[in-house]
Amino acid sequence: MKCSQLLGKRYKEVPSDTKLKSHELLIRGGYIRPVFSGVFSCLLPARKVLQKIEEIIREEMNAIGGQEVEMPLVQPKELWEESGRYQGIERELVRLKDRNAHDMVLAMTHEEAAVALARTEATTYKDYPFMIYQFAKKFRDEARPRGGLIRVREFTMKDAYSFHRTVEDLENYYGQCARAYGRIYARVGVPEVLAIQGDNGIMGGKVSHEYMLLSPCGEDTIIICPHCGYQANKEVASSDCIPKHDRENEMPLEKVHTPGVKTIQEVARFLNVPMTQVAKTVLYRSVGEEKLVVVMIRGDLEVNESKLAKVLKAIPEFAGDAEITAAGSVPGFSSAYGLDNVRIIADKSLEKEKNLVTGANEQDYHLKNFNFSREMPGTIFQDIANVQEGDLCPVCHQPLTLNRGIEVGNIFQLGDKYTRPMQMRYMDEQNQEQTPIMGCYGIGIGRLMASVIEAKHDDKGPIWPVSIAPWPVSIITLCPKNGGDEVNKCSGELYQKLQENHVDVLWDDRVATPGEKFADNDLLGIPLQLVLSERNLEKGQVEWKERGTGQKGFVPVDQVIPFVQNWLEAENTKLLKGAETVKVPPKEEYTH
Amino acid sequence: MKCSQLLGKRYKEVPSDTKLKSHELLIRGGYIRPVFSGVFSCLLPARKVLQKIEEIIREEMNAIGGQEVEMPLVQPKELWEESGRYQGIERELVRLKDRNAHDMVLAMTHEEAAVALARTEATTYKDYPFMIYQFAKKFRDEARPRGGLIRVREFTMKDAYSFHRTVEDLENYYGQCARAYGRIYARVGVPEVLAIQGDNGIMGGKVSHEYMLLSPCGEDTIIICPHCGYQANKEVASSDCIPKHDRENEMPLEKVHTPGVKTIQEVARFLNVPMTQVAKTVLYRSVGEEKLVVVMIRGDLEVNESKLAKVLKAIPEFAGDAEITAAGSVPGFSSAYGLDNVRIIADKSLEKEKNLVTGANEQDYHLKNFNFSREMPGTIFQDIANVQEGDLCPVCHQPLTLNRGIEVGNIFQLGDKYTRPMQMRYMDEQNQEQTPIMGCYGIGIGRLMASVIEAKHDDKGPIWPVSIAPWPVSIITLCPKNGGDEVNKCSGELYQKLQENHVDVLWDDRVATPGEKFADNDLLGIPLQLVLSERNLEKGQVEWKERGTGQKGFVPVDQVIPFVQNWLEAENTKLLKGAETVKVPPKEEYTH
Repeated sequence: MKCSQLLGKRYKEVPSDTKLKSHELLIRGGYIRPVFSGVFSCLLPARKVLQKIEEIIREEMNAIGGQEVEMPLVQPKELWEESGRYQGIERELVRLKDRNAHDMVLAMTHEEAAVALARTEATTYKDYPFMIYQFAKKFRDEARPRGGLIRVREFTMKDAYSFHRTVEDLENYYGQCARAYGRIYARVGVPEVLAIQGDNGIMGGKVSHEYMLLSPCGEDTIIICPHCGYQANKEVASSDCIPKHDRENEMPLEKVHTPGVKTIQEVARFLNVPMTQVAKTVLYRSVGEEKLVVVMIRGDLEVNESKLAKVLKAIPEFAGDAEITAAGSVPGFSSAYGLDNVRIIADKSLEKEKNLVTGANEQDYHLKNFNFSREMPGTIFQDIANVQEGDLCPVCHQPLTLNRGIEVGNIFQLGDKYTRPMQMRYMDEQNQEQTPIMGCYGIGIGRLMASVIEAKHDDKGPIWPVSIAPWPVSIITLCPKNGGDEVNKCSGELYQKLQENHVDVLWDDRVATPGEKFADNDLLGIPLQLVLSERNLEKGQVEWKERGTGQKGFVPVDQVIPFVQNWLEAENTKLLKGAETVKVPPKEEYTH
Repeated sequence: MKCSQLLGKRYKEVPSDTKLKSHELLIRGGYIRPVFSGVFSCLLPARKVLQKIEEIIREEMNAIGGQEVEMPLVQPKELWEESGRYQGIERELVRLKDRNAHDMVLAMTHEEAAVALARTEATTYKDYPFMIYQFAKKFRDEARPRGGLIRVREFTMKDAYSFHRTVEDLENYYGQCARAYGRIYARVGVPEVLAIQGDNGIMGGKVSHEYMLLSPCGEDTIIICPHCGYQANKEVASSDCIPKHDRENEMPLEKVHTPGVKTIQEVARFLNVPMTQVAKTVLYRSVGEEKLVVVMIRGDLEVNESKLAKVLKAIPEFAGDAEITAAGSVPGFSSAYGLDNVRIIADKSLEKEKNLVTGANEQDYHLKNFNFSREMPGTIFQDIANVQEGDLCPVCHQPLTLNRGIEVGNIFQLGDKYTRPMQMRYMDEQNQEQTPIMGCYGIGIGRLMASVIEAKHDDKGPIWPVSIAPWPVSIITLCPKNGGDEVNKCSGELYQKLQENHVDVLWDDRVATPGEKFADNDLLGIPLQLVLSERNLEKGQVEWKERGTGQKGFVPVDQVIPFVQNWLEAENTKLLKGAETVKVPPKEEYTH
């Protein structure tokens, strides 16, 4: 490709509306352009990177027996009613009507379509196991698209679905898939991606892992123990809870006047106790539950609503003031103590604390010296708190760290969540009908590209690994203002030769200053840059520069082709070697 | 790929709802499955064929300087308002609202998105010309999806958009693109595809070609002169009109009583004249035109509404009885003669006819001996008739043939149809603002796959050209009922070796009868089939069979790899040679 023909402006200025580095560089480098909120077009450099990522994923999916298929984006609502998700998912799932007023949806994922495709084909035990996958457009009507390609509405995803007869077989395949995922991240240049035990959602009981690239701009929080290696998503992480006030003697319960004192901080200051000695009360309503849910937790901690949802088996929502009053309490002065006809959930952080302060369910009054063992004996304590930085590791009791991460993939053991309601069946060896079980495995292609930039860039642009660079090599022709015929001719010959040797090369043949050319080649993140100038050619040399290391050197003109080939092979070999040694989640994390 | 692991049932029975051979075979061969009306999923064999077609198209698009991009399916309505198509296209364009109640559409084509992407990037004359293309999902809410993949609602299309400064440059690129298209069809195995001058639509003045595969199941009609090679779509084809009654003497005009006689046939029979001597009258209304449009044409001919639309510069619709009456005529007894305040359009077929019969605009009366030159002097005659089988070629005056065809691609010179309303501009050498012009070039991938089947199949299944076969080679292992270890072992080794030599091979390793295996390999259309049986292996031989020719032979076991390699190379060379000699439309067909 000649740079003079490449569509897409590149520029130095940082666009005003880009907060993430990947977003900034994808715009500045002429990779993507916004079409609408969360919807982008890609120019050639991005398309080439995406294609290379896709090809790596395709190879790894084929290597574990995957069969590439294609399922539609526009689907009839009946498919989503079968699985129960038509009602279950709200505004993220776009609904539309076709010309016959038939209700359709834009698929945001393809479990339903995969089951519908497979259930007519895999009807006997001989057909199992198998895995199908596709690279397909999805549409998710995100409330807050952001960060360029990190969170978009329309995107291409590799989604894979495996079908099995036994849990053991699913678990075994899940392990193979986890290894393939590790290889994919290593091959695209981010071997540091972590497999984190995921939130199993309100369905419970299922195993999942999220692949996380640690990055300050990530939306997810990951708890890591630097000491023992414990790692988990915030939604499922637990920490060792050390009581702060368990050695005090129980004092007599006392009602105190606390006029207008509502927040935990105000209460602690007013009554001169640490926040850890205040029992915070949060009131929720929960779908399908008539009683109000009264949650109590240590004053310095936050309720983790994912954990709470798992306890409730439903998604909690904050109760309104009227509901709180109707339950016999007073907003700002609540506690579970003395309330009838509510569901009480206490966090384990409170289990051993003594002499707590909590609401008196009366305007402007709190209780002092509240003790669960005395006031509310029989309370069951559960883990519903957010882990905080410095909390102790549940495994080795060393301090935990909180880290931000971008989710660049996930793998799930779905069990029969879709196959059972959608009545997928096969005949076993005894001619008995059985329901198969399923796993699913996703990678967002555009997000992965952007994440690689987050991980690999400098101020000048992305630093693409050779495996996914839009062009692995560029020729930068530096012409003097007048003339340069010889440099141009020599560049053209080299361009030709590299192409003949199957090297995909970008030739910067433009009439532009050296500064512009270097800046653009760096914005395009070209791993190996060959600089041709009059001065060097007079010495029979071509200068080379590594984008990643900044290392430079010279190579004789007649040695350029083998030099480039060797360099590319060495870089590719490094990436492939990395893929041979990927860490996979330990087996106990994904077996029952 | 081992056949035992391949998802997708194959069967002999012809599905009841398939009328086209390609639809039947795609279902029977386990290639595609319906999801909803006009919406399909593809299994691995189809996905592999589609991928190979895509790769051939990609190579040819890159060879003419195309830059692959990616544009979104879900687009804001504003983009379509800019071009005027939001209102212009009715139910085929699916509309939806996002979560913020913003109006969006599912793109059925990407001219708007292409202009929106290019207009910010190509702002000076130096940026021109360029071509961008993509393989992208489209959704068209067709009224009558049919024929499997021939007419669907959701489909993948290669759509390309070129941008130019001058008409000459566009025409020149159009020619290059026409050659690339010819090469694509040759390489996928249908070199017989014809480039037919297309209907330029109601926009007028633009050049286009439709690529047609002649097939009895096609939806399009193509007029071909077997003598001189004249060929054109029915929408634009003309024929030489030979007057039938031009030598008669003009007789006096006469009003005759024709009670209840309304149709042309009835009139001709009642008055004992040939249908060619009846002037048929058809009444239309036309959008944006107040006057009724009265069309007159020879009684044996049909009005071609595409041609009429071009004359009217609007789409005609049949007038209702009330409108006809209001215009002073009588349904069934109409003619233009004597009507005021109507727009009269007469077909050239009537220009020289004498003593015609036509309506008297009076209940139960017709006119005899109507002569345009006498009754309606000054009438302008235009070509608005359908060409009929046997009409004479407008070039060489030999009889024309009517043929059915499937449109497998099209190329258009769009001019400034999109760039002007969407205000795309660039600065020329004199620093003057200019509007670029555009061409667009489409190929539906799934339809092309189905069309290849229509062209290349027998009763047993598709006969895939080696370039796009799901697998170019298969190993068919025939095991005796008991045993067969040696045959299996030998097959496994051959399978391994072929893969090591980069031959994508399907190994039919199933426990199945030879009949089932041969049937399935034929349904999968595998071009070269290697049969391994105990008897042949004892002789040190492998049997080979060509799917296309039915030719068979034997090759020594140790010669199989070079035999297969040579065979594949020879087949591929044939296809590539075909691509070197493609016919392209003559230059006068696409220059102004």
